[in-house]
Amino acid sequence: MPDTQTDIHQVMTAIGAGARSAAVELARSRSIDRKHALDAAAARIRERTENLLSANAHDLEFGREKSLSGAMIDRLALDEDRIESIASGLESIAGLQDPVGAVIADWTVPSGLRIRRVRTPLGVIGVIYESRPNVTADAGGLCLKSGNAAILRCGSECMHSASAIHECLLDGLRSAGLPETAIQLVPTRDRAAVGEMLVMNDCIDVIIPRGGKGLVARVQAEARIPVFAHLEGICHVYVDRAADLNKARRVVMNAKTRRTGICGAAECLLIDRRFLQESGDGIVSDLIAAGVEVRGDETLVQAVPGVVAAADDDWGREYLDMIMAARVVDGLEEAIGHIRQYGSGHTDCIVTEDDAAADRFFANLDSAILMRNASTQFADGGEFGLGAEVGIATGKLHARGPVGAEQLTSFKYLVEGNGSIRP
Amino acid sequence: MPDTQTDIHQVMTAIGAGARSAAVELARSRSIDRKHALDAAAARIRERTENLLSANAHDLEFGREKSLSGAMIDRLALDEDRIESIASGLESIAGLQDPVGAVIADWTVPSGLRIRRVRTPLGVIGVIYESRPNVTADAGGLCLKSGNAAILRCGSECMHSASAIHECLLDGLRSAGLPETAIQLVPTRDRAAVGEMLVMNDCIDVIIPRGGKGLVARVQAEARIPVFAHLEGICHVYVDRAADLNKARRVVMNAKTRRTGICGAAECLLIDRRFLQESGDGIVSDLIAAGVEVRGDETLVQAVPGVVAAADDDWGREYLDMIMAARVVDGLEEAIGHIRQYGSGHTDCIVTEDDAAADRFFANLDSAILMRNASTQFADGGEFGLGAEVGIATGKLHARGPVGAEQLTSFKYLVEGNGSIRP
Repeated sequence: MPDTQTDIHQVMTAIGAGARSAAVELARSRSIDRKHALDAAAARIRERTENLLSANAHDLEFGREKSLSGAMIDRLALDEDRIESIASGLESIAGLQDPVGAVIADWTVPSGLRIRRVRTPLGVIGVIYESRPNVTADAGGLCLKSGNAAILRCGSECMHSASAIHECLLDGLRSAGLPETAIQLVPTRDRAAVGEMLVMNDCIDVIIPRGGKGLVARVQAEARIPVFAHLEGICHVYVDRAADLNKARRVVMNAKTRRTGICGAAECLLIDRRFLQESGDGIVSDLIAAGVEVRGDETLVQAVPGVVAAADDDWGREYLDMIMAARVVDGLEEAIGHIRQYGSGHTDCIVTEDDAAADRFFANLDSAILMRNASTQFADGGEFGLGAEVGIATGKLHARGPVGAEQLTSFKYLVEGNGSIRP
Repeated sequence: MPDTQTDIHQVMTAIGAGARSAAVELARSRSIDRKHALDAAAARIRERTENLLSANAHDLEFGREKSLSGAMIDRLALDEDRIESIASGLESIAGLQDPVGAVIADWTVPSGLRIRRVRTPLGVIGVIYESRPNVTADAGGLCLKSGNAAILRCGSECMHSASAIHECLLDGLRSAGLPETAIQLVPTRDRAAVGEMLVMNDCIDVIIPRGGKGLVARVQAEARIPVFAHLEGICHVYVDRAADLNKARRVVMNAKTRRTGICGAAECLLIDRRFLQESGDGIVSDLIAAGVEVRGDETLVQAVPGVVAAADDDWGREYLDMIMAARVVDGLEEAIGHIRQYGSGHTDCIVTEDDAAADRFFANLDSAILMRNASTQFADGGEFGLGAEVGIATGKLHARGPVGAEQLTSFKYLVEGNGSIRP
């Protein structure tokens, strides 16, 4: 394992060159071979369950020595069910439609040229993640499906587990006759390797950071390569004047409490004043009864027992916990203004029976995902029918929303003439 | 006009804030109003032809004082025809289909959610260009059509002409009731303004440099904002073993000589050895007869009178002139290898009657545009039927090939449920 700065530079340079050459092979590889590699890797993961569990035990031991939090240990831990879902995840990626080579458009222009726009892989994708070992398979698998070479950099906590999973991916590649450098795992815990990746703009086409705020911020600050960043999910639910009370109760409760630690969890509730006056405080008291700490504005503190006073920095905050900010607004425009000011452009929802209000909400906000009468927890590639994803992008360029196989492609134009010259 | 660093920072901050607020307005503006603004601006440009000519005369005088080259003076100069084509260019942009709000996909998932993916503007686009005054109208017009606010930074040589054109665009915006900050022209010649633009990542979503190598290199090195860069057009024409001689002669001649100064002009000719032996040197001797300096490899220097010897740095060079590098290759794979090594991923062409060869050329190269039996000079948004363009992007992300109105958009997901919660 390399341990000096120079070693790391050399290791990363070799990894970059390997990925670049694999990318050329992958771009012209057959769809069936990439599918076979993924299915074979899935089978291998099942066969090696014991091996994966013992690698994971090493990581867990290391994690306990480092006194990782319970939440981090949970992210890190594998069991038979989680290993089975890694395997079945690879199979479901294998079963997706191959995006590469798909004809997006096909037309003929007056000069007689036939022009086709077809999907191509992006090239080499660098994925930097933290403690979840399954990202090794998910991200490596999606990159392979979409014809891209992957350079994976796992968190130091999950190095043993990630290596064991990576071995299975390599077996899959070998059995399909694809280059082993198609999916590479950076073999060092040294953080300098991340710094190297972020400036390898000759070798890496796009960087995807998958982890907490600190990681994403570092990547965005240092990267000289385009980044598909997943910023915070500061998701809002606005309960409109014309909301249906029952739908509002269901949606708000699910959006906050189904799982509080995911990016699609709602963090802020906005309630129309007249709706509150006419329909009562059921939505808020439900939350409190369910154990949510509701941090409300003055009106809510007065109106609903158990609401605590919000501080200024509660607006626009991602709790990822059983806490929710809540505010009363005077109608749709004020809700839109609040979301524009404090949202993160991830997922925002309106609960309303009024089509015109929903249309205005949809037209006047520019979040990656806008919802009506549906829980923000649906913000997920699988729920969208896009298959697996490597995250939800909150930028506006190229990839936005769930980043699945299709978002990992570019396109090229194929133009056919008949000795055609331009006048 | 601002003249200190602090002044420029303040000016640019105000421009950024104006653009951001215009972007919100534009995102919800009506298609018909944006169209009206463009048509009105076109009419204004025609009315003000005299005024534009006299502004241009100032620029030309300044340019001659600065001893600009003949080519630069030509790019800078306006006449009645060029002014008419600026006006008709705006009208043709006005007539394009509005990309904003177009539904790209619409599906329903098993949970019952209806999901639509619709086009949205990118937001604020910064365009940095050099001496062509018409870019003011082309870029400003395309940004407006696609619902984006534009910050335009022209070269110091064309400031008077660009300002006069910009006035017409402002008249158009006013007459349509759209914010004047929708299209802003940076009002200073100081190059520090460019530096400011490149780091305004809170205000500008994407930067488009339109100019020579030096400008693009500076923008790529300094920008902290995504760049739609147009790198060099090192376009190749490969004449395959199975080429039709007549088509090859027509295509090569047009690709090189129709206009030598555009990015789609061919710079390097690759000829299959057997084709050369069997079909003779007509393609190369045609070029020489037309006044092209052909810089060939040893084989061609021996075989064709008038070919001069190429130096190592002739491969991968963008001449933009009546000069062409030329090399004999042993078949398709060698041609592909050469193009991969020396091409710039812009536009490359194969001349062949062999479908399998064309397929391999299309599959194994990843240039933004690949052509068969057609002149590389067709690499143009207008010729592609995409309408006007702000350049040909050579990156892989988001925008690639001709950057027209559609490439200046992003998308968002609109999701509709019925009180839907995620299990």
